[in-house]
Amino acid sequence: MADTDRSIYLAERLQRGDVFARDCPSRGVMKHMTSSWGVLTLVALQAGTLRFSALRRRIGGVSERMLSQTLQCFEADGLIDRRSFPVVPPHVEYTLTPLGEEAAEKVAGLADWIEDRLPQILAARRDSAPDAASAAGA
Amino acid sequence: MADTDRSIYLAERLQRGDVFARDCPSRGVMKHMTSSWGVLTLVALQAGTLRFSALRRRIGGVSERMLSQTLQCFEADGLIDRRSFPVVPPHVEYTLTPLGEEAAEKVAGLADWIEDRLPQILAARRDSAPDAASAAGA
Repeated sequence: MADTDRSIYLAERLQRGDVFARDCPSRGVMKHMTSSWGVLTLVALQAGTLRFSALRRRIGGVSERMLSQTLQCFEADGLIDRRSFPVVPPHVEYTLTPLGEEAAEKVAGLADWIEDRLPQILAARRDSAPDAASAAGA
Repeated sequence: MADTDRSIYLAERLQRGDVFARDCPSRGVMKHMTSSWGVLTLVALQAGTLRFSALRRRIGGVSERMLSQTLQCFEADGLIDRRSFPVVPPHVEYTLTPLGEEAAEKVAGLADWIEDRLPQILAARRDSAPDAASAAGA
């Protein structure tokens, strides 16, 4: 609640955030968007509207609780629309808002780069691992 | 150590990562690159080589320990070069590698977007905060 109050307070005056400033609320947004589950949720929804269960299947290893939390943060930040239908069993759908589409594009670029460069990064890790050095010397 | 072994094992066969796969080592890279301190460290080094103390001043709120850990991860992933000079007091410099420059560009795009859109995101938060709704009704 204190956090929300501070955000509202700052929003009145703010033209633009500054991620290097300790108290800037952009830090919180960055935290949501750049959590591993956050990145994957945004990228998964780029393909279109998904139900909770489908999202969970798509994102290998995410727990129900972590996915719920991630979706709630994004809903509060205005990046995701949540639509629930009054049926049994419950049917809830998630869709990127226009702001969310932009966010997804940015993190997708990042995820894509990581996937693409992974072989080079793993090669660097191998070279810097102490075991690899001693094995090469043997 | 087990993690390093698995990475080395996979590196031999890997053409490209898959961030949606639970066991893909790209998940670890994503974790380093998208931690709040990771993003800020990469973006700060885009301006050029920096000493540890200068980096720490630039990144508001980072502790010595967190910055050291972040730099170590990036060094191991091949994104940052560490150069230490044999002087007293110790002088250590950090520079992005060409791979790190690419990584920094991606996360800078993300940080820039967040700073730019922060006013809209905070407005969304205000609209979704329960307090704001009741205050508006009062």
